[in-house]
Parts: sequence; C-alpha cells; structure tokens
Amino acid sequence: MLGTRFRTEQIQRFFPILDWGKDYTRANLTGDLTAAVIVTIMLIPQSLAYALLAGLPAEVGLYASILPLVAYAIFGTSRALAVGPVAVVSLMTASALAPLGLANVADYVAAAGVLALLSGLFLVAMGALRLGALASLLSHPVIAGFISASGILIATSQLKHILGISVSGHTFPEIVSQVFSQIGLVNFPTVLIGVAALGFLFWVRKGMARTLVRKFGVSEYLAATAARIGPIFAVIGTTFLAWVLNLPEYGVAVVGQVPTGFPPFGLPKIDLELVGQLIAPAILISIIGYVESVSVAQTLAAKKKQRIDPNQELIALGASNISSGMSGGYPVTGGFARSVVNYDAGAETPAAGAFTAVGLLFAALALTPLLFFLPKATLAATIIVAVLSLVDLSILKHAWGYSKADFAAVFATIALTLAMGVEVGVATGVGVSLALFVWKTARPHVAEVGQVPGTQHFRNICRHQVLTDPEIVSLRIDESLYFANARRMEDMILARVHHGRDEIRHVILMCSAVNEIDLSALESLEATNQRLKDLGVKLHLSEVKGPVMDRLKRSHFLDHLTGSVFLSQYEAFQALKSDTAAAA
Amino acid sequence: MLGTRFRTEQIQRFFPILDWGKDYTRANLTGDLTAAVIVTIMLIPQSLAYALLAGLPAEVGLYASILPLVAYAIFGTSRALAVGPVAVVSLMTASALAPLGLANVADYVAAAGVLALLSGLFLVAMGALRLGALASLLSHPVIAGFISASGILIATSQLKHILGISVSGHTFPEIVSQVFSQIGLVNFPTVLIGVAALGFLFWVRKGMARTLVRKFGVSEYLAATAARIGPIFAVIGTTFLAWVLNLPEYGVAVVGQVPTGFPPFGLPKIDLELVGQLIAPAILISIIGYVESVSVAQTLAAKKKQRIDPNQELIALGASNISSGMSGGYPVTGGFARSVVNYDAGAETPAAGAFTAVGLLFAALALTPLLFFLPKATLAATIIVAVLSLVDLSILKHAWGYSKADFAAVFATIALTLAMGVEVGVATGVGVSLALFVWKTARPHVAEVGQVPGTQHFRNICRHQVLTDPEIVSLRIDESLYFANARRMEDMILARVHHGRDEIRHVILMCSAVNEIDLSALESLEATNQRLKDLGVKLHLSEVKGPVMDRLKRSHFLDHLTGSVFLSQYEAFQALKSDTAAAA
Repeated sequence: MLGTRFRTEQIQRFFPILDWGKDYTRANLTGDLTAAVIVTIMLIPQSLAYALLAGLPAEVGLYASILPLVAYAIFGTSRALAVGPVAVVSLMTASALAPLGLANVADYVAAAGVLALLSGLFLVAMGALRLGALASLLSHPVIAGFISASGILIATSQLKHILGISVSGHTFPEIVSQVFSQIGLVNFPTVLIGVAALGFLFWVRKGMARTLVRKFGVSEYLAATAARIGPIFAVIGTTFLAWVLNLPEYGVAVVGQVPTGFPPFGLPKIDLELVGQLIAPAILISIIGYVESVSVAQTLAAKKKQRIDPNQELIALGASNISSGMSGGYPVTGGFARSVVNYDAGAETPAAGAFTAVGLLFAALALTPLLFFLPKATLAATIIVAVLSLVDLSILKHAWGYSKADFAAVFATIALTLAMGVEVGVATGVGVSLALFVWKTARPHVAEVGQVPGTQHFRNICRHQVLTDPEIVSLRIDESLYFANARRMEDMILARVHHGRDEIRHVILMCSAVNEIDLSALESLEATNQRLKDLGVKLHLSEVKGPVMDRLKRSHFLDHLTGSVFLSQYEAFQALKSDTAAAA
Repeated sequence: MLGTRFRTEQIQRFFPILDWGKDYTRANLTGDLTAAVIVTIMLIPQSLAYALLAGLPAEVGLYASILPLVAYAIFGTSRALAVGPVAVVSLMTASALAPLGLANVADYVAAAGVLALLSGLFLVAMGALRLGALASLLSHPVIAGFISASGILIATSQLKHILGISVSGHTFPEIVSQVFSQIGLVNFPTVLIGVAALGFLFWVRKGMARTLVRKFGVSEYLAATAARIGPIFAVIGTTFLAWVLNLPEYGVAVVGQVPTGFPPFGLPKIDLELVGQLIAPAILISIIGYVESVSVAQTLAAKKKQRIDPNQELIALGASNISSGMSGGYPVTGGFARSVVNYDAGAETPAAGAFTAVGLLFAALALTPLLFFLPKATLAATIIVAVLSLVDLSILKHAWGYSKADFAAVFATIALTLAMGVEVGVATGVGVSLALFVWKTARPHVAEVGQVPGTQHFRNICRHQVLTDPEIVSLRIDESLYFANARRMEDMILARVHHGRDEIRHVILMCSAVNEIDLSALESLEATNQRLKDLGVKLHLSEVKGPVMDRLKRSHFLDHLTGSVFLSQYEAFQALKSDTAAAA
C-alpha cells in the first residue's frame, strides 16, 4: 500500500500533467483556449523571425513551436511557461552553426536538429543528477549583461534585412563595419518596408493600447490583446503590399516557398564529428536557456503563489529540446515575452501550450503558402522591437555603485559578447566572476579586535572604541582558511607579532568567520604555531565552529597547539588578560 | 637626500648582491668555495642526466648549470638556493617539446632554449606585477601529489635506459606497456651496468656514510661529503669499464661525442608559431618551477632566520631562465637536493652558486671528451635514485583522514599526471581544488543558533544547550553570500520560516561569517525581505562586519529592510525576545 503510494507520487512528480490533469475544469479550458489563440497569433511571425535569426528556413521556426510545447505540457511544472524559439538561443544557434561552414541548407537544418538533441540530452542528464544548481554559477550581473549585449547584437544583426544588404559578420564590430561599407548598396523599397514595419511595431508596443482605449473607447482588455497580436497586422499588411506591388521584382527579399505539411519526424542525420563540434555550444545553450526559462517560470509562479521544481524543469526543457530535434526543429526554451502573454491572456495550465501547438500545426499545414510574399524586413523589424526591450544597460551603473567586482564581471560579459560573440562573452563572464571570488577570498580581510565596553562582544579596533591588552593580539580572520590564502595568513600573523614583539605573549585567532580549514591551511597553522612558539608567544583559537572543530580533532594540530581553544572570544580574553588590561 | 636613499634601497632590493656583497668576508669565501666544489662534483652527472631526461644532448645540461647560476647569484634573495636543471622541470620540458615532432636535434635544442626564454620572461613579468601569490593556487596536497606522481613517471621513463630498449611513451600506462612488450629485447650488458649503478647509488645514499664511519673510522663530515659526491664514482667506474671492455660494441648506449667549449651565446632561433605552441607549457613550467624553488628557499632561509622576498625570487628565477635560454640551456629552477647539499656544505652567500658555475664551465671546457664512454644506464640510475626520494604517497592517506576534498584533489593530480602527463595532471589538480572550493561555498553550512546560558554568546542549537524564543529564528550563515549560493540561501530561509510558520515573527541573520555580499546576493536578500514581509515576518541582521556594512549602506537595501541591523546577536535577541522566551 505504502509502496503503491510512493510509486504514484514518484510518477506524478515526473509527470506533473497527472497532477493538474485530474482536476481539469471547464473554466481551465476556457482560460487555456483563449490564451492559446492569442499566443498562436503572436507566435507565428515570431517563430518565423527567430528561425531567420538562427540562419534557418522559416518553417523550422514553426516546427520548433509544435512538439516541444506538447513535451513541456507533459513534463513541465510551470503553469504559464511558453516554450519555443527565443531570441538569445536563436542567436547562439547561429553562432554555433556558423563555424561548421555547411553550404547545404539540409545539412545546416540537420545540424540544428542535432544541437537541439544534444542540448536536450544534456538537460535531462542535469535533471537526473539534480544539478540544477550549476546554473547558479551565472551571477545576476552576468546574466543581465549577457542578455543586454545579446539584444544589441541581435538588433544589429537584423539591420541587414532592414537595409536589404548582405552582411556575414557575427560580432558587433564586424557587423557595424560591414553595414557601413555597404551603405551605398541599400535597397530602398526594402528600407521603406522595414522602417514602416519598425515604426508600426514600436507604436503597437508603446502607444496603440492607449490610443484604442482613449480614442476608440475599446475596453482595456481588448486593447491589450490587440497590442499583443499587433505584429500579425504588420505581417499581413506588408505581405499584401509585397504581393500587390510584386516587390520581389524590386529587390525586396521575401520568405518565399515554405513547405506545407506535418513536421518531419525522426532523428536528424548524426555523425560523430558533428557531435564533437556541437557538444560545447549545446552545453552553453542548455545552461543559458535553462537560466532564462527558470527565472521566467519562477517570476510567474510567485505571482500565483505556485511553486516550480527546478530539477523537474531541467527534465521538461530537455524533453522539449529532444522532441524539437526529432521534429525538424532547433533549440528551444521558455521565452519571457510569450510566457508573460500566455499568463496575462489567462492560461491556467500547461494545456494552453498544447493548444498553441495545435494552432501552429494548423499554420504549418495550411498557412505556409500565404507566407511566400512575407518580406524578411518585416520579420527583422519584429525581432528588433522584441529584443530592444531586453537591453537594459543600467546594470552597469548599478553594479559600479555597489561593487567593483560585480562591475568587472558585467562589463567583461557585455564587452566580450559584443566583441567576440555570445559563447566567449558568457564564458568570460562566468570565469571573471569566479576568478574575482577566488581572488577576494585569497586576500581576506583581517581585523584586530577588542572588547566593546560593557558587552562580551569584540569588534575591529579601527572602527570601534574597544578594550585591548598589550600582551594579547586578537585577530578576527574574515575568511575560510584554504590553500589560496593559507600562506598569506601565516605571513600576516607573524608580521603583526614582529611589529609589537616585546610585549606580546598571546595571539588569539577569532574564528567566527572561518567556515573551513583545509589541509594546506592546517599545515600553515601548524607552521604558525611553531614559529610563534620560537618567539615565546602562545597561539589560541576562539569561536571555532562545530564542523571546523570536528575536523581539527581528526588531525594532530590540537596536540601541538601551544595555547587553548576557547568557546568564545570573551572567554579567551578573560582567561588570558593581564593586570595591565584590567586597569585599562 | 631622501630621494637618493630611496633610490639606493630600490636598487638594492632589485640587486640583492649589493646587500650581501658589501660585507663579504674571508670566512664567507671559504664556506662558499667548499660548497661550490662539492656541488660541482654532484652537479656534473646530474646535469647530464637531466638533459637526457629532457630528451636533450648531454652538454645542454652543463650549459644550463653555468650562466643561470650567475644570474641567480646577482638577483636572488636566498643565500643557499642552487639553481639548475631539475627532474620535474626536465620531464615537463620533454613533455612540452615532444608534441612538436622536431626530428632535427638542433631544432629541438633551439625549442628548449625558446621554452626557457619564454618561461623567464613570464617569471619576470609576474615579479614586476608582484603576482607571486598566483602560485598559492597550487595547494599543498596538489603539489605533493604532483611531485610524487612525477617521480614515479620519471623513474619509469628511465627504465628503458637501464634495460637498453627503446620506449617512446610519455604516460605511465604507455611506458609500462611498451616496456613489457619489449622485455625480450633487453640488452644484458646494459642491464648489468644499470643494475650495478642503481645498487651502488642506493647504497651510497642509504648505507655508505654509516659504513665509512663505523668500519673505516672516517669522520662524520667526510663520510657525509663522500655520500654526496658518491654518484661521481659510479660515473667514473662505469665509464672506465665501458672504455676498457669497449661496451658500445656489445650494444651498451653511451653518451658519445660531447662538444667541448664555451656555451653558445645568443638568442635561440625564434619563430612565432613555435612561441605560440610553447607559451602554455612555459607558463606551467614557470609556476611549477617557482613553487618548487620558493618552497626550498623558504625552508632553508627559516633555518638561519633569514628572509626571502617571493616577488624578487620571481625576478631572479626569470633572469636565470632568460640567461639559460641565451646560453644553449633549457628551463631551470632552484632544486631541492642540490640546495640542501649547498646549504649543508657551508654555502654562506649566493657567491657559492657563481663558483659552482665556474666549476661547471671548466667541465664544459675540459672534461667533455672524458664523457664519451659514460653509459646512459648510469645516468638513468642517477635519475631513478634521485627521484624515488621525491615519491611519498602518504599524502593520500593523510588527506583522506583530514578532508575528502583535499583527497579528491591529490588523487586527481596523481592519477591524471600518471595517466595523461604532467600538464593535464597539474592543471586538473588546480581545477579540482578550485571547483571543490567553489562547490563548498555554494552549499554553505547554516546553523540555527541560541544563547549559551549565562553568556552573551550564541551557538548551534543542535550542538549546545541554548536558550531560544519561539517567535525568533536566529540563523548563523557560515559563508559569504555571493552568486553561487544566493538563491539557495533565499530558499533555505523561506523553508525554515514555512516550517514553523504560525509563531515566527522575526528572522535574525547572524552575519559573523559573512565576509562579502555581492550584487546577486543583495538581490536575493531584497527578495527574501519582501517574501518574509508578505508572511508578516520581519528580517533583521546582526554582527554585520564593517566592510560589508559599508557596502550595504551604498545600496537601498537598508531603506526597505523590515527589521533592524544590530551590533551583536545578543543585542538583537534582547531587543526582540518575547515574554515566552524570558520564561524559558
């Protein structure tokens, strides 16, 4: 009986659909269906646009928005997250596939599928090993910097579609210099379409809802909905124009022939050399995608006091990517914009995602012939408007004001993402954050402390009025002792004793901030003890924490320690203080 | 006036020779000359042998023992350190040059010179930037593991010379399998010479001094000196045998023609591709060589209460390597064995090194014809006996008993050095140490604390009998708060509050071990504050350190904090405790 319940719980945990599915109501269905319709209309142009950004044929964007949504609906724990192609991951896909130099479109599409598959397998493996915490290596400033820099990079990369020129660069300086060198080659009909679409889309985002409410008396809800599905009007309008005026004859690039039908199903062409080349980008894409997705999911869950399970999210995103790789798609993740729209439009359960998938399948089956005359400039405008909202460089000022280390990490991330691409940028950001953390812990703060009068509390003699004793040096070590700072600590303690040599008889190390003493530090402490002994000075410890003390007891250090270990700094000071101090 | 004195001090600091040189006495001269003679006799076979280990012609070992010693005498701060070719650096040189696939000996020698030059430039740069602390990234267990594994690897690599077979592997499994597969091809005269030399050298090291004193009444000092220069007898004996019996005819490999004359002087052939290939190994060699050298220098300085300057040592070792690269040598460093011999033989100043250089120059000018018949098996035996004394696997047991993280680092270092070579081994050791450190700080210990009765001291409620209050949760966070643990902390605090929800009105975070709060952690603290506020719980901080408080004051966190910041945990508890607690 207990075994059965345990099994059921395990299964429910792995298939959250069993949990929300059994209580599914008519009200849920209404909410989910409404959300699905709105999200579908929003996703059609976005899916096409992001495929374009990834360098893929437009239909791949649609395919990546069908099965992955169903997979997330089965495995995901967020009620509102909408999975599919997103801007940053599309950019990363382009940057992973570009170095392969695949001239054949079919090979390029297959490689994108393999990337999704590898990314999915990696995510599932992380979930199975419960390694979601690895994502915490990306600090907030690094993520913020990376997203902003990616937004700038993406917007810049889309300029070529707005201008009707051909640019092959993948970094900000490359793209900008190529755009300037070809400024004479711009295609004016394309620029007109592109600028008009941009202007319309900015208006849709910023002013349309207000205008509709104020001037046309439309309800707030309807106006907000119209703003969300606004991009579809730009798509319809410019496609119609291109068809009527036969704009391709005037050099306006259009989407062209898009195959109609079900997404292809099955494994993409896999060879080991390709897998070897894609494994590192796949891991990076997985981690970035996961971080983006989980933070969106957590934000939305908090609003309804729901909880998401970060490790199950790994499984769900992994399943989404595997299904994307097996159905002609490319790497996907939970997107910010679409999830917020899904949530605001009233999605109650992951079923909304499944309904959206049906909508997009219908688009793939029936609407693709209508996309022939859709100008690429319109899609580029959609991308630019979407990603510019991601750019927020205030993180630079914020980080500068708070901590130079955080500033260095965010600055390095932004600069290197722009200058050398997304992979180098994010890897540098993580590297700089970790290196600065190690650097800080390797050069710890050490405070000489004294007793705050009338209390049993000890604080820095430079910051507070405190009692001290000429025969006692009390040093509070503000860091765990480990290999990177062990030697420095040894030198620092000895230097302090040499400084006031004649009077000093006791050194007390106040260990309230020492959370760890590793083997290197233990050897340094032994050496310090010996060297102080040679000078006739006793070494004492105070406020050693339980776990640290347990470990010291396993070594021989305490047998050779010339002084004692005291429970508190106050006890140590009381026991050792001389008559001089009592008079002070 | 002040300016002049400052300049003089600066110059003296950069040229320590000016400091000890001006007080040089006749007694110093006697000590230095005696030491130089003994070290010269010891160094001749060792230099040849280590050149062999590095895959270089024998004379390169001599050249690397001349100018570098003079350079160290000028720039070095240790009075007893003896610089020259050493076992581990020779092995690393071989492993750096092997992948270049240089068939021509002259190219190979030139590449070794470039390696020394690059290593020297890197060391000087580190010294100029005062980056000696970088070496502290190598923890004691990693160094110990690396030295032991290198010793095993070197000894194994020399078996081919003892057996007279040809082995090309560079890792332990490769070498062992090649030795076994060729066991039928051994050359018996070589084995006889090799085993005899090995037996003699082990006896010299372990038993000769005692035998000389007990059976022949030789004085202790003379016996110890004989033991030190013992290897030269093996060299003379086996060379004589090889000449008389014409052993090369029976397949015994000998050193052969060694050019006579001054070392070549000038820059080796440098091309940019070579520099690119050697830069990473050069950095690794520099760091390992520096760590070995500085720890020997510090050990010997401590015995005479002298001090060495770690940053000036970088300059001195850099100068040694540059001069080695410019005089036909290869990378050098301060060696353990030779420095101890130098110290024990009475070296008083670095002049002993300069005198040794003169001795080795004499060897290069006059003795090389005598080396023709020196069997390579003898040199291999010299190496094996020298390096086996470096092997001490007790570090594994020691680390296991003290800390599993230290054990993991040392085990990874040993296993990967043996299995994949020195570069992978030491890089893995450093990587594993750092990763485990970050891993530990990312999953910190958090203790719920209460007041130790009769004191103002607060300790873990699970380890001590303490007073608590049902309305107050006091959590001592045993780690700096930073991006890798920020989210985890947030979840942990919230989970604790949810656990005892109804009664809790205050959460006090005791920050005595929080040495840093970065921007990510600040955002998590703000979120925690907000989430606790929604639950009707106030958040307080206590014992926030000066530097952390300074930074918090620069943010808006304190404006939104629902509770207060208290100087001590005792104050916080006194101010917040309810009537229930007073009764407890």
